[in-house]
Amino acid sequence: MFEKLTPIAESEKSLVKAEISALKSRLSVQQQQIKQIKLPVIVLIEGWGASGKGSLISDIILSIDPRSFTVHSINPPTEEEARHPFLWRYFKKIPEAGQFVFFDSGWYGETIKNIMVDDMDNRDCKERIRSINAFERQLVDNGYLVVKFFLHIPKKVQDKRFKKLLDSKNTEWRISDLDKRENKHYKEYAAAWDKLMEKTDTPAAPWHIIDGTEYSKRLQVYRILTDAIAAAAEGKRPEYLPPEESFPLLAMPKLADVPLNQQVDEANYRIQLKEAQNHLKDLHNRIYRKKIPVILVYEGWDAAGKGGNIKRVAAALDPRGYEVVPIAAPDKHELSRHYLWRFWNRIPKTGHITIFDRSWYGRVMVERLEGLCKEADWKRAYHEMNEFEQELSSWGAVILKFWIHIDKDTQLERFTERQNTPEKQWKITEEDWRNREKWDLYEVAVDEMLQKTSTQYAPWYIIESKDKRYARLKVLHILIDALEKVLKEKE
Amino acid sequence: MFEKLTPIAESEKSLVKAEISALKSRLSVQQQQIKQIKLPVIVLIEGWGASGKGSLISDIILSIDPRSFTVHSINPPTEEEARHPFLWRYFKKIPEAGQFVFFDSGWYGETIKNIMVDDMDNRDCKERIRSINAFERQLVDNGYLVVKFFLHIPKKVQDKRFKKLLDSKNTEWRISDLDKRENKHYKEYAAAWDKLMEKTDTPAAPWHIIDGTEYSKRLQVYRILTDAIAAAAEGKRPEYLPPEESFPLLAMPKLADVPLNQQVDEANYRIQLKEAQNHLKDLHNRIYRKKIPVILVYEGWDAAGKGGNIKRVAAALDPRGYEVVPIAAPDKHELSRHYLWRFWNRIPKTGHITIFDRSWYGRVMVERLEGLCKEADWKRAYHEMNEFEQELSSWGAVILKFWIHIDKDTQLERFTERQNTPEKQWKITEEDWRNREKWDLYEVAVDEMLQKTSTQYAPWYIIESKDKRYARLKVLHILIDALEKVLKEKE
Repeated sequence: MFEKLTPIAESEKSLVKAEISALKSRLSVQQQQIKQIKLPVIVLIEGWGASGKGSLISDIILSIDPRSFTVHSINPPTEEEARHPFLWRYFKKIPEAGQFVFFDSGWYGETIKNIMVDDMDNRDCKERIRSINAFERQLVDNGYLVVKFFLHIPKKVQDKRFKKLLDSKNTEWRISDLDKRENKHYKEYAAAWDKLMEKTDTPAAPWHIIDGTEYSKRLQVYRILTDAIAAAAEGKRPEYLPPEESFPLLAMPKLADVPLNQQVDEANYRIQLKEAQNHLKDLHNRIYRKKIPVILVYEGWDAAGKGGNIKRVAAALDPRGYEVVPIAAPDKHELSRHYLWRFWNRIPKTGHITIFDRSWYGRVMVERLEGLCKEADWKRAYHEMNEFEQELSSWGAVILKFWIHIDKDTQLERFTERQNTPEKQWKITEEDWRNREKWDLYEVAVDEMLQKTSTQYAPWYIIESKDKRYARLKVLHILIDALEKVLKEKE
Repeated sequence: MFEKLTPIAESEKSLVKAEISALKSRLSVQQQQIKQIKLPVIVLIEGWGASGKGSLISDIILSIDPRSFTVHSINPPTEEEARHPFLWRYFKKIPEAGQFVFFDSGWYGETIKNIMVDDMDNRDCKERIRSINAFERQLVDNGYLVVKFFLHIPKKVQDKRFKKLLDSKNTEWRISDLDKRENKHYKEYAAAWDKLMEKTDTPAAPWHIIDGTEYSKRLQVYRILTDAIAAAAEGKRPEYLPPEESFPLLAMPKLADVPLNQQVDEANYRIQLKEAQNHLKDLHNRIYRKKIPVILVYEGWDAAGKGGNIKRVAAALDPRGYEVVPIAAPDKHELSRHYLWRFWNRIPKTGHITIFDRSWYGRVMVERLEGLCKEADWKRAYHEMNEFEQELSSWGAVILKFWIHIDKDTQLERFTERQNTPEKQWKITEEDWRNREKWDLYEVAVDEMLQKTSTQYAPWYIIESKDKRYARLKVLHILIDALEKVLKEKE
């Protein structure tokens, strides 16, 4: 990859200076433009220790209104961050529309450290590269501009710069033990970076390798950055390429073919419920101690009995170790970011359980049917959501998704009952009746969703809920089996 | 305080059981009610180790829809939490309107640990009690219901329960070293709790001490909780008492009396700006290493030059150590919480600088003048904001507040120039013109704000900005002086 070094413009120092100055003005104007067109921009600066990452960022931001950017300097993960998936802290930091985010080192620097210091094995490394490429492609497909730089300096230059910094009491603290290690094993680090960049040099987010020894390095950076913004502003985006990798999907029946005649009588239900809840209580304790994260997704027809079902699961759990997250229409600050951002923000930490009452699948149901996103957006979303869940699964999460299912007649009965029972009237709104009119369209969307997003690591379960008691027991038993299984694997 | 133990109802076990069951139904109904009337409820359960806090919470939440509550189990502060003020992690966790939050131990448990283990001195302890009382009073004054329980068990009972837990491999991990310490020094802990509860037993948030040995303890808790919710729902709130303590205020001139004729010529400005920025750069480095947090608040007339002023300060700072936070109208999830919540969420960690471009002072300006809050709300807010800043200051933050000031004619000139310059038109909106019509009303509000919220620890500075160059230098110099001073104190 290092041979991809951006060629240096041979030029007088004064000419370089003049061009930089012109490009800074251009960036200044672009900053107002991106605000208007609501383009979010991520600039990632990676590079060798003492290659000038920090001072480069300091220089760039002088041309931008300080209200329009944030700089994140990435340090080793905190306790909290370490209890979440690798991408979590990066996804949390993506800008909202019209804003810049600068990363002073980021997901690559962390990966190199994992390879060189923490001895990440080959399999994990491959997995990591997959994560990173999916992350960047998803950002770009969802309207982000991602510009990646690597500041390159040869070992000799690094030696000299380190020596200078170490010679002064005021600057020696800037060189960490990790930096020294990098310097000592420069060649091995170079090989690792070379390989990593080669595998992540994608159409969505190509690498720009900059000669960090040259006076003209800033010129290169300004040119590349302003050209990239100009192209994005004109709508020139990397073409959406349907990903090569497809997920092995589990066969799912059509909703119309699912019989709904199951029943459990009250006496049996009481006994089985108590038994299942006691069992689950014990399992919760064990997964808490084994630090296994669990994610439950509830989707289903209105009045299918989601709330009551969730309640029976929650009742068995230690309240210190779970959270129920009800998902409504996104708030303004959520709408102005990648649609998965608000879900990334709510995933559990290791050992905890999060129950989503509705979820990211809104993308391919309500957003699809109400025209809240473009056709290309929801069509792409099946794959994006599979990737999201794959990410969570390979981090170690147990993911179970429930479609709480009833038929149209049962819904009508329950709606009518709600309407006629004063204490229940608050549960039924005009919107519920409107959604009901679209039952058939929803059924098509749900069928497609179930077909396209049920994977081994994040399966869908259709929960027949005409008899709510049956549905509650079914969910509890599925959850218990899944937790037993994962605990057995971890023994 | 322990003599305030809620008296036990002498009653048959079966009667107790029946009443508990009735109260659970009551709570269930109330939960729907609080959603409708948008009442946020905080339930804090403190108590001795093994007094049954966790299982009490588990029992209460069975009567509540799991989408309507969150349980926070408070552990020792994380790295991130330890770099913020004491109240930070609690303020972040307050519920939104219509929701419950349960704390399984909270700000009191942490305080007792600080007293008994970390040897918090008398002065800090007094300060802490002041913080806690202000925190709870502010919540209640802003519409929250705060219900505090202490589960009391005598030492002998604790001995027995600990022994039982420690005897089994499955439960011994529940007894921490801290718990053992508490048991060993039960008497001293009891004295500390007694004193702490006595000093925090306020009309806004009184203590309820519950006999944790009795079967009827749950009955007590349900009675108190449901009665408190019922009272709050009927609008029976503790009366707002203007706080006794008032803050020593700095004398501030009226805006009308501030001369605006200062000027700096371009050549001098260039030299002084460079000098000040270099100086500030060095100071930023030093406060970063001394871990001093800094909070700058910018308020001012439209077109007074806030943005350009902020830019000149930001340009001198290391981007890894500061953030500019522009404050616009609150988003939905912000509006549904205490108005200071969104600012608590954005305060810097130790060693960092946050620049607020507009701030919590919107409460007594735009919210006051546009009727976005009640008169009682903004009138109370002066004191609340003084308390908020006192909290930050006693944590160690440097707080400086700038009113960027121009006169009405200068604003007209600048508005007109913006209107007539194509590249600047985006900077001027209809709303700016509308606000301008209310100049005189704003002037009254600003004068009152400056009079009532300029304190030694968070002073206001009026920055004459008819000459923007003068204004920029003035802010830089004030900031430099303040940082020099705090660094000297910390030497």
